[in-house]
Parts: sequence; C-alpha cells; structure tokens
Amino acid sequence: MSQTNITAALLVIGDEILSGRTKDKNIGYIAEYLTNIGIDMKEVRVVPDEEEEIVAAVNALRKRYTYLFTTGGIGPTHDDITADSVAKALGLELYEDQRIIDMMLQRLKPEDLNEARRRMARIPVGAEHVANPVSKVPGFRVENVIVMAGVPSIMQAMLDDVAPRLTTGARMISETIDAMGVPEGSYAAGLGDIAKAHPGVIIGSYPQFGEGRFKNQIVVRSKDAESLQAAAAAVREMLTKILAAQGA
Amino acid sequence: MSQTNITAALLVIGDEILSGRTKDKNIGYIAEYLTNIGIDMKEVRVVPDEEEEIVAAVNALRKRYTYLFTTGGIGPTHDDITADSVAKALGLELYEDQRIIDMMLQRLKPEDLNEARRRMARIPVGAEHVANPVSKVPGFRVENVIVMAGVPSIMQAMLDDVAPRLTTGARMISETIDAMGVPEGSYAAGLGDIAKAHPGVIIGSYPQFGEGRFKNQIVVRSKDAESLQAAAAAVREMLTKILAAQGA
Repeated sequence: MSQTNITAALLVIGDEILSGRTKDKNIGYIAEYLTNIGIDMKEVRVVPDEEEEIVAAVNALRKRYTYLFTTGGIGPTHDDITADSVAKALGLELYEDQRIIDMMLQRLKPEDLNEARRRMARIPVGAEHVANPVSKVPGFRVENVIVMAGVPSIMQAMLDDVAPRLTTGARMISETIDAMGVPEGSYAAGLGDIAKAHPGVIIGSYPQFGEGRFKNQIVVRSKDAESLQAAAAAVREMLTKILAAQGA
Repeated sequence: MSQTNITAALLVIGDEILSGRTKDKNIGYIAEYLTNIGIDMKEVRVVPDEEEEIVAAVNALRKRYTYLFTTGGIGPTHDDITADSVAKALGLELYEDQRIIDMMLQRLKPEDLNEARRRMARIPVGAEHVANPVSKVPGFRVENVIVMAGVPSIMQAMLDDVAPRLTTGARMISETIDAMGVPEGSYAAGLGDIAKAHPGVIIGSYPQFGEGRFKNQIVVRSKDAESLQAAAAAVREMLTKILAAQGA
C-alpha cells in the first residue's frame, strides 16, 4: 500500500462568492479533479478581495499542504489583487512578462494595451505560466502556489494545463454502498465498529433527504484496493443482517 | 449611514465536500441569505471530519466574527463529530438533552432509540435548540456558534428558525450594471478611479465567459443608498463615454 500523500488546499478569492451574488462552481470541480489524479484536497477557504486576508490565507495554506490552488482576482480591474497578494505573501517582486504582453498583442491592437491590461502581464519572479487556451492571458505557478482564473471554463482549462506537471500520490479509490432504506441510526453502531476494525479505510455515511424520507449512502474510501474491498464487504454484510432482522 | 457591521463565517465540515463526491450547495445559499438580512459573510472554510481540524477552525473563526455557522456532521454515525468538536473548542461539556430525546420518541419506537441515535441528543451546556421541522432532531446555538445540518433542505429550515434571533446590521444593497460589451481592460482604469472616489462603496467587475466572448457585469455595493446611487451613476456615465468614443 502506497503511503504517498500529496495534499492540496484551495483558496477562493472574491467578494462575489461571500455575498452570494456568484455561486461558486470551482470548489466541487477542483475537489473531484484532484481526487481523481491522486491529490488529496484537505482544506478550502473563501476570502474577500482584501490584500491582508489573501496574504494571511496564502501563507497559512501554502506552508501546510503540498500545493495551494487559488481561483479568482487575476483580471485587469482594481479589485483583481491576487498576483500582488501572492507575491507579497511569498516575498517576491512582480515583473511585467514580455511573453504575456506578446500574447495579448495577438488579440489586441497596440493602442488598446493600456495600463490596466498590462497589469495582467505581471507575474512573480520565478513564476511559470499556466496556459489559458480560452482567453490567452495565463495564470501562473510560483513555488507550490498555482494561481488560476475564477471564470469556471478558464479555470478548468488552466487545471488541465498544470495537472500533468504536478506530483501526484496514490489515488483515493472509493465504493458507494446504498443503505437500502436502513436508517442511519440503525446502522451507526455497526458502521462505527467496522470503521475501527479497518483503520486504513475512511468510512462516511451521507444522508440525502427527499420525498419526505432519508435515502442514505455509505461511502468507503481507501488508497488500497484490498482494504477497500474488505471494508465494503463488511458494510454490505452488516446491512444485510439488519434487513434480515427487520424482516424476521 | 449606519456603521453597524455584523459579520459571519461559515465552516463546512465534511470529507465528502473535499473529495468532490458531494457538491456543496450550502455556501452560496447561506451567503445570499445572510447578505439579505444584513449580516456580512467574511470567510468560509471547508475542513475534513477530523476533530483537531474542526476545533482549530471553530476557534479561529468564532473569535473573529460576530457569528460562526457550521454545516454538517451532526448525524448519528461515527464520522459525525461536530457537536463534540464545537464543545471541545468552547471548553464546554455535552449533555443528553431530554427534550431532544422526547422529540425523537415521537418518531421512533423506544426500542429503536439506540446509543447511536442518542448521540444526536447531545448538545453543549448552555446551548439553545435550532429547530428542525424536516426531520425533528434540532441543531443548536451556543455562544456565537450556530450548528446546523449539512443536508440542504434541513439546513435551510434551521436557518429560517435561527435567523429572527440574530442581531443584524445595515443591509448591503447592490446594483448590477451590464458593461454593454465593453471589455474589462477598457474600463478598468476608469472603474479604479471611481472606486477611489467613492470610498464607502465596494465596486467589483465580474467577467462571464460564454459563446466565445466575455460578458461583463459591474456590481456596486454599499450600505448607504445615496452613496450607491452616486457611484452607480458614475459607472454608467463612464461606460457611455467609452461606447461613444468607440462609435466616434
């Protein structure tokens, strides 16, 4: 069983998420994407467009996890302060990258390359580009921090670009078991016992509520296929016993 | 202009959100709800079902904001450790609340009230109930921490129950202005100048990408209606001038 754990945090930057005006679509997408490539997302934070808040969160998260991904705040307007804040957190200077200016000039007339747009060409010293095939201006990676756009289609393209260059670990595999109508409270004790007996496996119980009743699913997760199968079998056996007892 | 700022943070508790298995639907809902009642959500964190992580986040957030809301982890299974973690963070004991046991007995046969289900009746000393009309077992509020379910329909009902008992501040009002096809880079400088000239107003620019092009919206927010109108008028005037110049 591989013990390689590669971890990540996600920092979502934007007043619009905190006000509820924009409903975030990136957290769930990035979570699932990273799980699928063997990176464990361990924490998410959402902070406003305020330099002090962004700097504090970047420093808390980049030191704790293998990677820190950020979304949002890399456009040309005054509220786009992610590049400045990340550079400040890392103690790095920003410079105007001529390669980005050249990319912009492929789409813009030279007279439209104003000061605001030039801000988007500023990246920290030592940063590499994260390509943006959608609207060209790239995100960047510097040290273990990966700075991406907030617009979902652009973020997704950037993630596709950077992912092959990341170190990945053993992939978390999972099995979802339908609780077949057994209420959580009826299997909770048995499930707790199974969780204790299978320490390499993470077991969760997830109720959904609809049509006036709960419909529960039990999810068994592990990085080791054999451990996963053993725990999943124990869960199914327990549910079968409870159902048989109910029928008796 | 009212200066009352009532703030909140949201702590989403659950491995399933971090793995991407479950896509969170609560952050956006709570953000919009709190904005509408005059509470400013300033931060969101998502942490796994691990006591140490929950305790650390609860303590960081409850001290910093007027209110801390949590979602998730209040069911009967072994991975439901929110009540224990919140009590630990606050240095309080949990006790089994007979009123909750009585509510549960309205829906359960006494022989089905097992140890796992009894766990859901444990709340910290001094906590008050947050009613759950959907599946009865309540959430709770203790000090400035409000503990709610993760299932969206139940969380929403709990928020409706607790909201009238919260202190609220001046409501943030906003106006959304369509950028009428003007690219962000063309209005960024002007918008930055307007933001500087209207310090009581928060101005954001939000690109959406679709059908191969950006469609931008400018959102002007303030707690003061006159300040809001003045800034919004300035934004509209700026956009009109840019469009006129383009047409010239």
